[in-house]
Amino acid sequence: PFVAGIDAGSTAVKLVLYDENRFGFWQRPSGWSPGETARELLREALAEWERTKEELAYICGTGYGRVNLPFLDSAVTEIACHARGAVHLRPDVQLVIDIGGQDAKGILVSSTGRVIDFVMNDKCAAGTGRFLAVMAHALGMEVAEMGACQPESVTVQPQPINAMCTVFAESEVIGLLNQGIDRRAIIAGLHQSVARRVSAMVARLGATGPVLFTGGVARNAAVRAALEKELGCPVGVAEQSPFAGAIGAALIAREKAAGRTPSESS
Amino acid sequence: PFVAGIDAGSTAVKLVLYDENRFGFWQRPSGWSPGETARELLREALAEWERTKEELAYICGTGYGRVNLPFLDSAVTEIACHARGAVHLRPDVQLVIDIGGQDAKGILVSSTGRVIDFVMNDKCAAGTGRFLAVMAHALGMEVAEMGACQPESVTVQPQPINAMCTVFAESEVIGLLNQGIDRRAIIAGLHQSVARRVSAMVARLGATGPVLFTGGVARNAAVRAALEKELGCPVGVAEQSPFAGAIGAALIAREKAAGRTPSESS
Ligand code: SF4
Repeated sequence: PFVAGIDAGSTAVKLVLYDENRFGFWQRPSGWSPGETARELLREALAEWERTKEELAYICGTGYGRVNLPFLDSAVTEIACHARGAVHLRPDVQLVIDIGGQDAKGILVSSTGRVIDFVMNDKCAAGTGRFLAVMAHALGMEVAEMGACQPESVTVQPQPINAMCTVFAESEVIGLLNQGIDRRAIIAGLHQSVARRVSAMVARLGATGPVLFTGGVARNAAVRAALEKELGCPVGVAEQSPFAGAIGAALIAREKAAGRTPSESS
Repeated sequence: PFVAGIDAGSTAVKLVLYDENRFGFWQRPSGWSPGETARELLREALAEWERTKEELAYICGTGYGRVNLPFLDSAVTEIACHARGAVHLRPDVQLVIDIGGQDAKGILVSSTGRVIDFVMNDKCAAGTGRFLAVMAHALGMEVAEMGACQPESVTVQPQPINAMCTVFAESEVIGLLNQGIDRRAIIAGLHQSVARRVSAMVARLGATGPVLFTGGVARNAAVRAALEKELGCPVGVAEQSPFAGAIGAALIAREKAAGRTPSESS
Protein backbone atom coordinates (compact mmCIF):
# COMPACT_ATOMS: atom_id res chain seq x y z
CA PRO A 1 0.00 0.00 0.00
CA PHE A 2 0.98 3.60 -0.67
CA VAL A 3 1.42 5.52 2.60
CA ALA A 4 2.81 8.73 4.10
CA GLY A 5 4.66 9.53 7.31
CA ILE A 6 4.85 13.07 8.62
CA ASP A 7 7.08 14.38 11.39
CA ALA A 8 5.79 17.85 12.25
CA GLY A 9 8.64 19.16 14.36
CA SER A 10 8.83 22.57 15.98
CA THR A 11 11.53 23.66 13.54
CA ALA A 12 10.98 21.61 10.37
CA VAL A 13 8.24 19.44 8.94
CA LYS A 14 9.56 16.21 7.40
CA LEU A 15 7.50 14.11 5.01
CA VAL A 16 8.14 10.62 3.71
CA LEU A 17 6.12 8.95 0.95
CA TYR A 18 6.48 5.18 0.83
CA ASP A 19 5.24 3.00 -1.98
CA GLU A 20 6.38 -0.60 -2.41
CA ASN A 21 10.13 -0.25 -1.92
CA ARG A 22 10.43 3.36 -2.89
CA PHE A 23 10.86 6.16 -0.35
CA GLY A 24 10.61 9.88 -1.09
CA PHE A 25 11.80 12.61 1.29
CA TRP A 26 10.71 16.24 1.65
CA GLN A 27 11.19 18.83 4.34
CA ARG A 28 10.49 22.48 5.01
CA PRO A 29 10.78 24.94 7.93
CA SER A 30 7.68 24.63 10.11
CA GLY A 31 6.88 28.34 10.14
CA TRP A 32 4.08 29.65 12.31
CA SER A 33 1.71 26.84 11.38
CA PRO A 34 3.29 23.37 11.17
CA GLY A 35 -0.17 22.01 10.26
CA GLU A 36 -0.49 24.29 7.24
CA THR A 37 3.12 23.63 6.25
CA ALA A 38 2.57 19.86 6.44
CA ARG A 39 -0.55 20.12 4.28
CA GLU A 40 1.29 22.08 1.58
CA LEU A 41 4.30 19.82 1.69
CA LEU A 42 2.09 16.76 1.23
CA ARG A 43 0.31 18.36 -1.74
CA GLU A 44 3.62 19.21 -3.42
CA ALA A 45 5.15 15.80 -2.76
CA LEU A 46 2.13 14.02 -4.21
CA ALA A 47 2.22 16.27 -7.29
CA GLU A 48 5.90 15.45 -7.72
CA TRP A 49 5.19 11.73 -7.63
CA GLU A 50 2.08 12.27 -9.80
CA ARG A 51 -0.17 10.68 -7.24
CA THR A 52 -3.29 11.89 -5.45
CA LYS A 53 -4.21 12.09 -1.79
CA GLU A 54 -7.00 9.58 -2.42
CA GLU A 55 -4.44 6.96 -3.37
CA LEU A 56 -2.80 7.17 0.03
CA ALA A 57 -3.88 4.13 2.06
CA TYR A 58 -2.75 5.60 5.35
CA ILE A 59 -1.15 8.77 6.77
CA CYS A 60 0.63 8.53 10.08
CA GLY A 61 1.96 11.59 11.91
CA THR A 62 4.30 12.35 14.76
CA GLY A 63 6.16 15.27 16.29
CA TYR A 64 5.26 18.30 18.31
CA GLY A 65 2.76 19.56 15.68
CA ARG A 66 0.94 16.26 15.12
CA VAL A 67 -2.07 17.49 17.08
CA ASN A 68 -2.64 20.13 14.41
CA LEU A 69 -2.83 17.72 11.48
CA PRO A 70 -6.53 16.90 10.98
CA PHE A 71 -5.87 14.79 7.88
CA LEU A 72 -3.89 12.09 9.72
CA ASP A 73 -5.24 8.57 10.01
CA SER A 74 -3.38 8.31 13.27
CA ALA A 75 -0.85 10.10 15.44
CA VAL A 76 1.97 8.19 17.12
CA THR A 77 4.40 9.33 19.82
CA GLU A 78 7.80 10.62 18.76
CA ILE A 79 9.69 7.99 20.74
CA ALA A 80 7.92 5.13 18.92
CA CYS A 81 8.44 6.71 15.48
CA HIS A 82 12.04 7.70 16.01
CA ALA A 83 12.99 4.27 17.32
CA ARG A 84 11.23 2.59 14.40
CA GLY A 85 12.87 4.85 11.84
CA ALA A 86 16.30 4.47 13.43
CA VAL A 87 16.06 0.66 13.38
CA HIS A 88 15.15 0.89 9.70
CA LEU A 89 18.20 3.07 9.00
CA ARG A 90 20.52 0.91 11.11
CA PRO A 91 19.04 -2.48 12.09
CA ASP A 92 21.61 -3.20 14.82
CA VAL A 93 21.18 0.17 16.56
CA GLN A 94 21.06 0.09 20.34
CA LEU A 95 21.14 3.79 21.22
CA VAL A 96 19.37 6.44 19.17
CA ILE A 97 20.52 10.00 19.85
CA ASP A 98 18.09 12.43 18.32
CA ILE A 99 18.86 16.16 18.41
CA GLY A 100 16.14 18.27 16.89
CA GLY A 101 15.50 21.96 16.55
CA GLN A 102 14.11 22.31 20.06
CA ASP A 103 14.66 19.05 21.86
CA ALA A 104 17.03 16.13 22.36
CA LYS A 105 16.24 12.50 23.10
CA GLY A 106 18.07 9.30 23.82
CA ILE A 107 16.26 6.02 23.07
CA LEU A 108 17.51 2.62 24.16
CA VAL A 109 16.39 -0.05 21.70
CA SER A 110 16.40 -3.85 22.19
CA SER A 111 17.89 -6.24 19.62
CA THR A 112 14.35 -6.81 18.35
CA GLY A 113 13.81 -3.06 17.83
CA ARG A 114 11.63 -2.53 20.89
CA VAL A 115 11.95 0.66 22.99
CA ILE A 116 13.45 -0.30 26.36
CA ASP A 117 13.89 3.14 27.86
CA PHE A 118 14.32 6.76 26.86
CA VAL A 119 15.40 10.17 28.16
CA MET A 120 14.28 13.49 26.76
CA ASN A 121 14.94 17.19 27.14
CA ASP A 122 12.34 19.51 25.68
CA LYS A 123 12.35 22.04 28.52
CA CYS A 124 15.79 23.63 28.18
CA ALA A 125 17.23 25.00 24.94
CA ALA A 126 20.76 23.96 25.93
CA GLY A 127 21.86 20.79 24.13
CA THR A 128 19.37 21.26 21.29
CA GLY A 129 19.44 22.76 17.81
CA ARG A 130 18.08 25.93 19.30
CA PHE A 131 21.28 26.47 21.27
CA LEU A 132 23.26 26.31 18.02
CA ALA A 133 20.77 28.62 16.27
CA VAL A 134 21.13 31.25 19.01
CA MET A 135 24.93 31.00 18.83
CA ALA A 136 24.99 31.18 15.04
CA HIS A 137 22.99 34.39 15.34
CA ALA A 138 25.46 35.79 17.88
CA LEU A 139 28.32 34.87 15.54
CA GLY A 140 26.52 36.47 12.60
CA MET A 141 26.44 33.26 10.57
CA GLU A 142 24.14 30.39 9.59
CA VAL A 143 24.02 27.17 11.62
CA ALA A 144 25.17 25.22 8.55
CA GLU A 145 28.17 27.53 8.19
CA MET A 146 29.03 26.88 11.83
CA GLY A 147 29.10 23.14 11.20
CA ALA A 148 31.12 23.53 8.01
CA CYS A 149 33.56 25.81 9.83
CA GLN A 150 34.95 22.78 11.60
CA PRO A 151 35.63 20.09 8.99
CA GLU A 152 36.93 16.79 10.29
CA SER A 153 40.27 17.36 8.60
CA VAL A 154 41.01 20.44 10.71
CA THR A 155 41.79 20.00 14.37
CA VAL A 156 40.94 23.05 16.43
CA GLN A 157 41.38 23.15 20.18
CA PRO A 158 37.87 23.96 21.43
CA GLN A 159 37.52 27.08 23.54
CA PRO A 160 35.58 25.75 26.55
CA ILE A 161 32.23 27.47 27.04
CA ASN A 162 31.61 27.64 30.78
CA ALA A 163 27.95 28.60 30.79
CA MET A 164 25.57 25.72 30.22
CA CYS A 165 22.59 28.05 29.81
CA THR A 166 21.93 29.25 26.26
CA VAL A 167 21.37 32.83 27.42
CA PHE A 168 24.54 33.02 29.51
CA ALA A 169 26.58 31.15 26.88
CA GLU A 170 25.52 33.72 24.29
CA SER A 171 26.96 36.51 26.46
CA GLU A 172 30.07 34.43 27.01
CA VAL A 173 30.54 33.98 23.25
CA ILE A 174 30.17 37.71 22.66
CA GLY A 175 32.76 38.32 25.38
CA LEU A 176 35.15 35.79 23.81
CA LEU A 177 34.75 37.43 20.39
CA ASN A 178 35.50 40.81 21.95
CA GLN A 179 38.63 39.31 23.51
CA GLY A 180 39.71 38.31 20.02
CA ILE A 181 39.46 34.54 20.59
CA ASP A 182 39.57 32.57 17.32
CA ARG A 183 36.04 32.04 15.99
CA ARG A 184 36.76 28.46 15.02
CA ALA A 185 37.85 27.65 18.56
CA ILE A 186 34.63 29.19 19.89
CA ILE A 187 32.55 27.22 17.40
CA ALA A 188 34.34 24.01 18.37
CA GLY A 189 33.59 24.85 22.00
CA LEU A 190 29.91 25.33 21.19
CA HIS A 191 29.70 21.96 19.43
CA GLN A 192 31.43 20.42 22.42
CA SER A 193 28.91 22.06 24.74
CA VAL A 194 25.98 20.45 22.90
CA ALA A 195 27.75 17.07 22.84
CA ARG A 196 28.51 17.23 26.57
CA ARG A 197 24.99 18.07 27.55
CA VAL A 198 23.47 15.33 25.40
CA SER A 199 26.08 12.74 26.46
CA ALA A 200 25.38 13.46 30.11
CA MET A 201 21.67 13.00 29.46
CA VAL A 202 21.94 9.68 27.60
CA ALA A 203 24.55 8.27 30.03
CA ARG A 204 21.90 6.92 32.36
CA LEU A 205 20.53 4.66 29.61
CA GLY A 206 23.73 2.63 29.95
CA ALA A 207 23.95 1.72 26.27
CA THR A 208 26.98 -0.20 25.06
CA GLY A 209 26.02 -1.06 21.46
CA PRO A 210 25.87 0.79 18.15
CA VAL A 211 24.80 4.44 18.26
CA LEU A 212 22.82 6.21 15.54
CA PHE A 213 22.57 9.98 15.48
CA THR A 214 19.27 11.29 14.09
CA GLY A 215 17.30 14.54 13.91
CA GLY A 216 18.10 17.78 12.14
CA VAL A 217 21.37 18.31 14.00
CA ALA A 218 22.67 14.92 12.71
CA ARG A 219 23.60 16.84 9.53
CA ASN A 220 26.23 18.65 11.57
CA ALA A 221 29.41 16.56 11.28
CA ALA A 222 31.16 18.65 13.92
CA VAL A 223 28.52 17.84 16.55
CA ARG A 224 28.77 14.18 15.57
CA ALA A 225 32.55 14.23 16.01
CA ALA A 226 32.15 15.97 19.38
CA LEU A 227 29.61 13.31 20.45
CA GLU A 228 32.08 10.56 19.54
CA LYS A 229 34.69 12.22 21.69
CA GLU A 230 32.35 12.62 24.65
CA LEU A 231 30.84 9.14 24.42
CA GLY A 232 34.15 7.47 23.57
CA CYS A 233 32.59 5.35 20.84
CA PRO A 234 31.67 5.65 17.16
CA VAL A 235 28.45 7.55 16.42
CA GLY A 236 26.81 6.55 13.16
CA VAL A 237 24.77 8.82 10.98
CA ALA A 238 22.67 7.87 7.97
CA GLU A 239 22.03 10.03 4.94
CA GLN A 240 18.36 10.10 5.92
CA SER A 241 19.02 10.62 9.67
CA PRO A 242 16.99 13.84 9.82
CA PHE A 243 13.99 11.86 8.51
CA ALA A 244 14.10 9.08 11.12
CA GLY A 245 10.82 10.12 12.74
CA ALA A 246 8.99 10.48 9.43
CA ILE A 247 10.39 7.16 8.19
CA GLY A 248 9.16 5.49 11.37
CA ALA A 249 5.74 7.08 10.87
CA ALA A 250 5.63 5.81 7.29
CA LEU A 251 6.59 2.27 8.36
CA ILE A 252 3.90 2.30 11.03
CA ALA A 253 1.44 3.66 8.43
CA ARG A 254 2.29 0.76 6.12
CA GLU A 255 1.58 -1.77 8.87
CA LYS A 256 -1.66 -0.09 9.79
CA ALA A 257 -2.74 0.05 6.17
CA ALA A 258 -1.92 -3.64 5.77
CA GLY A 259 -3.68 -4.67 8.94
CA ARG A 260 -6.23 -1.87 8.98
CA THR A 261 -6.30 -2.16 12.72
CA PRO A 262 -8.35 0.58 14.38
CA SER A 263 -6.31 3.76 14.49
CA GLU A 264 -4.73 4.67 17.81
CA SER A 265 -3.88 8.12 18.95
CA SER A 266 -1.20 8.88 21.50
CA PRO B 1 35.96 53.84 61.28
CA PHE B 2 35.24 54.93 57.74
CA VAL B 3 34.71 51.88 55.49
CA ALA B 4 33.38 50.79 52.09
CA GLY B 5 31.40 47.78 50.92
CA ILE B 6 31.31 46.83 47.26
CA ASP B 7 29.00 44.34 45.61
CA ALA B 8 30.40 43.74 42.12
CA GLY B 9 27.48 41.94 40.49
CA SER B 10 27.38 40.67 36.95
CA THR B 11 24.89 43.37 35.98
CA ALA B 12 25.52 46.29 38.35
CA VAL B 13 28.23 47.33 40.76
CA LYS B 14 26.85 48.63 44.05
CA LEU B 15 28.93 50.68 46.46
CA VAL B 16 28.20 51.69 50.03
CA LEU B 17 30.30 54.14 52.04
CA TYR B 18 29.75 53.92 55.79
CA ASP B 19 31.04 56.45 58.27
CA GLU B 20 29.75 56.62 61.85
CA ASN B 21 25.99 56.40 61.29
CA ARG B 22 25.94 57.73 57.77
CA PHE B 23 25.50 55.47 54.73
CA GLY B 24 25.97 56.55 51.10
CA PHE B 25 24.79 54.50 48.13
CA TRP B 26 26.04 54.40 44.53
CA GLN B 27 25.55 52.03 41.68
CA ARG B 28 26.39 51.65 38.01
CA PRO B 29 26.02 49.00 35.28
CA SER B 30 28.98 46.62 35.50
CA GLY B 31 29.93 46.88 31.83
CA TRP B 32 32.70 44.68 30.47
CA SER B 33 34.96 45.20 33.45
CA PRO B 34 33.23 45.17 36.84
CA GLY B 35 36.64 45.72 38.43
CA GLU B 36 37.28 48.92 36.48
CA THR B 37 33.71 50.07 37.08
CA ALA B 38 34.06 49.49 40.83
CA ARG B 39 37.31 51.46 40.90
CA GLU B 40 35.72 54.45 39.14
CA LEU B 41 32.60 54.30 41.25
CA LEU B 42 34.69 54.33 44.42
CA ARG B 43 36.70 57.32 43.19
CA GLU B 44 33.56 59.29 42.37
CA ALA B 45 31.83 58.39 45.63
CA LEU B 46 34.84 59.47 47.67
CA ALA B 47 35.02 62.74 45.73
CA GLU B 48 31.35 63.35 46.42
CA TRP B 49 31.88 62.85 50.14
CA GLU B 50 35.11 64.86 49.94
CA ARG B 51 37.13 62.02 51.37
CA THR B 52 40.20 60.13 50.15
CA LYS B 53 40.92 56.48 49.66
CA GLU B 54 43.61 56.71 52.31
CA GLU B 55 40.99 57.58 54.91
CA LEU B 56 39.16 54.31 54.30
CA ALA B 57 39.95 51.95 57.18
CA TYR B 58 38.70 48.88 55.33
CA ILE B 59 37.17 47.88 51.97
CA CYS B 60 35.20 44.68 51.82
CA GLY B 61 33.91 43.26 48.54
CA THR B 62 31.46 40.63 47.42
CA GLY B 63 29.65 39.50 44.29
CA TYR B 64 30.59 37.73 41.11
CA GLY B 65 33.30 40.28 40.22
CA ARG B 66 34.99 40.42 43.64
CA VAL B 67 37.93 38.39 42.35
CA ASN B 68 38.78 41.28 40.01
CA LEU B 69 39.02 43.93 42.71
CA PRO B 70 42.70 44.11 43.72
CA PHE B 71 42.11 47.03 46.09
CA LEU B 72 39.90 45.08 48.52
CA ASP B 73 41.07 44.39 52.05
CA SER B 74 39.00 41.24 51.92
CA ALA B 75 36.44 39.42 49.81
CA VAL B 76 33.43 37.75 51.42
CA THR B 77 30.89 35.33 49.93
CA GLU B 78 27.64 36.72 48.60
CA ILE B 79 25.50 34.62 50.93
CA ALA B 80 27.23 36.05 54.02
CA CYS B 81 27.02 39.65 52.76
CA HIS B 82 23.43 39.45 51.57
CA ALA B 83 22.25 37.89 54.80
CA ARG B 84 24.08 40.51 56.82
CA GLY B 85 22.69 43.37 54.76
CA ALA B 86 19.17 41.96 54.84
CA VAL B 87 19.23 41.65 58.64
CA HIS B 88 20.35 45.28 58.81
CA LEU B 89 17.45 46.36 56.57
CA ARG B 90 14.93 44.22 58.42
CA PRO B 91 16.16 42.83 61.76
CA ASP B 92 13.39 40.22 62.10
CA VAL B 93 13.90 38.77 58.60
CA GLN B 94 13.80 34.98 58.33
CA LEU B 95 13.87 34.47 54.56
CA VAL B 96 15.89 36.65 52.19
CA ILE B 97 14.86 36.37 48.54
CA ASP B 98 17.51 37.98 46.39
CA ILE B 99 16.90 38.29 42.64
CA GLY B 100 19.80 39.84 40.80
CA GLY B 101 20.65 40.47 37.20
CA GLN B 102 21.85 36.93 36.58
CA ASP B 103 21.04 34.87 39.63
CA ALA B 104 18.51 34.25 42.36
CA LYS B 105 19.06 33.12 45.93
CA GLY B 106 17.05 32.23 48.97
CA ILE B 107 18.73 32.54 52.38
CA LEU B 108 17.25 31.22 55.62
CA VAL B 109 18.37 33.35 58.56
CA SER B 110 18.14 32.52 62.26
CA SER B 111 16.69 34.94 64.82
CA THR B 112 20.26 35.93 65.66
CA GLY B 113 21.00 36.76 62.03
CA ARG B 114 23.03 33.64 61.32
CA VAL B 115 22.76 31.86 57.92
CA ILE B 116 21.02 28.51 58.49
CA ASP B 117 20.68 27.35 54.89
CA PHE B 118 20.47 28.71 51.36
CA VAL B 119 19.50 27.83 47.79
CA MET B 120 20.88 29.45 44.69
CA ASN B 121 20.38 29.47 40.95
CA ASP B 122 23.16 30.99 38.92
CA LYS B 123 23.13 28.40 36.14
CA CYS B 124 19.82 29.10 34.41
CA ALA B 125 18.63 32.52 33.29
CA ALA B 126 15.00 31.65 34.07
CA GLY B 127 13.84 33.19 37.33
CA THR B 128 16.50 35.93 37.26
CA GLY B 129 16.69 39.53 36.11
CA ARG B 130 18.14 38.27 32.87
CA PHE B 131 14.88 36.54 32.01
CA LEU B 132 13.08 39.88 32.38
CA ALA B 133 15.76 41.68 30.36
CA VAL B 134 15.40 39.23 27.47
CA MET B 135 11.62 39.59 27.56
CA ALA B 136 11.77 43.39 27.73
CA HIS B 137 13.92 43.28 24.60
CA ALA B 138 11.38 41.01 22.86
CA LEU B 139 8.61 43.41 23.86
CA GLY B 140 10.63 46.39 22.65
CA MET B 141 10.67 48.11 26.01
CA GLU B 142 12.85 48.68 29.07
CA VAL B 143 12.69 46.36 32.09
CA ALA B 144 11.62 49.31 34.27
CA GLU B 145 8.76 50.04 31.87
CA MET B 146 7.67 46.42 32.12
CA GLY B 147 7.43 46.68 35.90
CA ALA B 148 5.63 50.01 35.70
CA CYS B 149 3.20 48.56 33.16
CA GLN B 150 1.54 46.62 35.93
CA PRO B 151 0.87 49.01 38.82
CA GLU B 152 -0.67 47.49 41.94
CA SER B 153 -3.89 49.42 41.37
CA VAL B 154 -4.56 47.65 38.06
CA THR B 155 -5.56 44.01 38.10
CA VAL B 156 -4.65 42.21 34.91
CA GLN B 157 -5.28 38.50 34.45
CA PRO B 158 -1.80 37.13 33.68
CA GLN B 159 -1.40 35.29 30.38
CA PRO B 160 0.30 32.06 31.51
CA ILE B 161 3.71 31.53 29.91
CA ASN B 162 4.14 27.78 29.40
CA ALA B 163 7.84 27.66 28.62
CA MET B 164 10.09 27.83 31.65
CA CYS B 165 13.21 28.27 29.52
CA THR B 166 14.11 31.88 28.71
CA VAL B 167 14.82 31.03 25.07
CA PHE B 168 11.56 29.15 24.52
CA ALA B 169 9.56 31.70 26.53
CA GLU B 170 10.88 34.46 24.28
CA SER B 171 9.49 32.65 21.23
CA GLU B 172 6.24 32.07 23.09
CA VAL B 173 5.94 35.79 23.88
CA ILE B 174 6.54 36.71 20.24
CA GLY B 175 3.85 34.20 19.25
CA LEU B 176 1.42 35.67 21.79
CA LEU B 177 2.08 39.20 20.53
CA ASN B 178 1.41 38.00 16.96
CA GLN B 179 -1.86 36.51 18.17
CA GLY B 180 -2.80 39.95 19.44
CA ILE B 181 -2.78 39.02 23.15
CA ASP B 182 -2.82 42.08 25.42
CA ARG B 183 0.73 43.15 26.24
CA ARG B 184 -0.12 43.85 29.85
CA ALA B 185 -1.44 40.31 30.29
CA ILE B 186 1.78 38.94 28.77
CA ILE B 187 3.89 41.13 31.07
CA ALA B 188 1.87 39.97 34.10
CA GLY B 189 2.48 36.39 32.95
CA LEU B 190 6.22 37.02 32.73
CA HIS B 191 6.34 38.45 36.25
CA GLN B 192 4.35 35.43 37.43
CA SER B 193 6.85 33.14 35.70
CA VAL B 194 9.78 34.64 37.61
CA ALA B 195 7.84 34.51 40.88
CA ARG B 196 6.87 30.85 40.34
CA ARG B 197 10.37 29.75 39.57
CA VAL B 198 11.87 31.54 42.57
CA SER B 199 9.08 30.43 44.93
CA ALA B 200 9.61 26.80 43.90
CA MET B 201 13.32 27.19 44.58
CA VAL B 202 12.99 28.74 48.05
CA ALA B 203 10.18 26.37 49.09
CA ARG B 204 12.60 23.75 50.35
CA LEU B 205 14.03 26.18 52.91
CA GLY B 206 10.70 25.84 54.75
CA ALA B 207 10.66 29.43 56.01
CA THR B 208 7.60 30.67 57.89
CA GLY B 209 8.72 34.09 59.13
CA PRO B 210 9.18 37.54 57.61
CA VAL B 211 10.43 37.70 54.03
CA LEU B 212 12.64 40.45 52.63
CA PHE B 213 13.07 40.85 48.88
CA THR B 214 16.52 42.15 47.87
CA GLY B 215 18.65 42.50 44.74
CA GLY B 216 18.11 44.61 41.65
CA VAL B 217 14.77 43.02 40.80
CA ALA B 218 13.38 44.06 44.21
CA ARG B 219 12.73 47.45 42.58
CA ASN B 220 10.06 45.76 40.46
CA ALA B 221 6.81 46.04 42.42
CA ALA B 222 5.02 43.72 40.01
CA VAL B 223 7.47 40.86 40.69
CA ARG B 224 7.08 41.51 44.41
CA ALA B 225 3.29 41.32 44.15
CA ALA B 226 3.59 38.10 42.11
CA LEU B 227 5.93 36.64 44.76
CA GLU B 228 3.39 37.45 47.48
CA LYS B 229 0.74 35.62 45.49
CA GLU B 230 2.92 32.57 44.92
CA LEU B 231 4.26 32.38 48.49
CA GLY B 232 0.94 33.28 50.08
CA CYS B 233 2.55 35.71 52.51
CA PRO B 234 3.70 39.33 52.61
CA VAL B 235 7.03 40.05 50.94
CA GLY B 236 8.79 43.10 52.32
CA VAL B 237 11.07 45.35 50.37
CA ALA B 238 13.31 48.09 51.70
CA GLU B 239 14.26 51.27 49.88
CA GLN B 240 17.85 50.07 49.88
CA SER B 241 16.99 46.44 48.98
CA PRO B 242 19.18 46.47 45.85
CA PHE B 243 22.14 47.40 48.07
CA ALA B 244 21.73 44.56 50.58
CA GLY B 245 24.97 42.85 49.51
CA ALA B 246 27.00 46.06 49.57
CA ILE B 247 25.52 47.07 52.95
CA GLY B 248 26.48 43.66 54.32
CA ALA B 249 29.98 44.10 52.95
CA ALA B 250 30.25 47.54 54.58
CA LEU B 251 29.05 46.20 57.95
CA ILE B 252 31.58 43.38 57.77
CA ALA B 253 34.25 45.93 56.79
CA ARG B 254 33.38 47.99 59.84
CA GLU B 255 33.80 44.97 62.11
CA LYS B 256 37.06 44.00 60.51
CA ALA B 257 38.36 47.55 60.78
CA ALA B 258 37.39 47.66 64.45
CA GLY B 259 38.89 44.27 65.24
CA ARG B 260 41.56 44.34 62.56
CA THR B 261 41.39 40.57 62.57
CA PRO B 262 43.45 39.02 59.77
CA SER B 263 41.55 39.34 56.48
CA GLU B 264 39.88 36.22 55.19
CA SER B 265 39.17 35.50 51.57
CA SER B 266 36.39 33.22 50.41
S1 SF4 C 1 19.47 26.94 31.48
FE1 SF4 C 1 19.11 28.57 29.96
S2 SF4 C 1 18.60 27.44 28.17
FE2 SF4 C 1 18.24 26.07 29.88
S3 SF4 C 1 16.15 26.36 30.64
FE3 SF4 C 1 17.42 27.80 31.72
S4 SF4 C 1 17.22 29.64 30.51
FE4 SF4 C 1 16.69 27.96 29.16
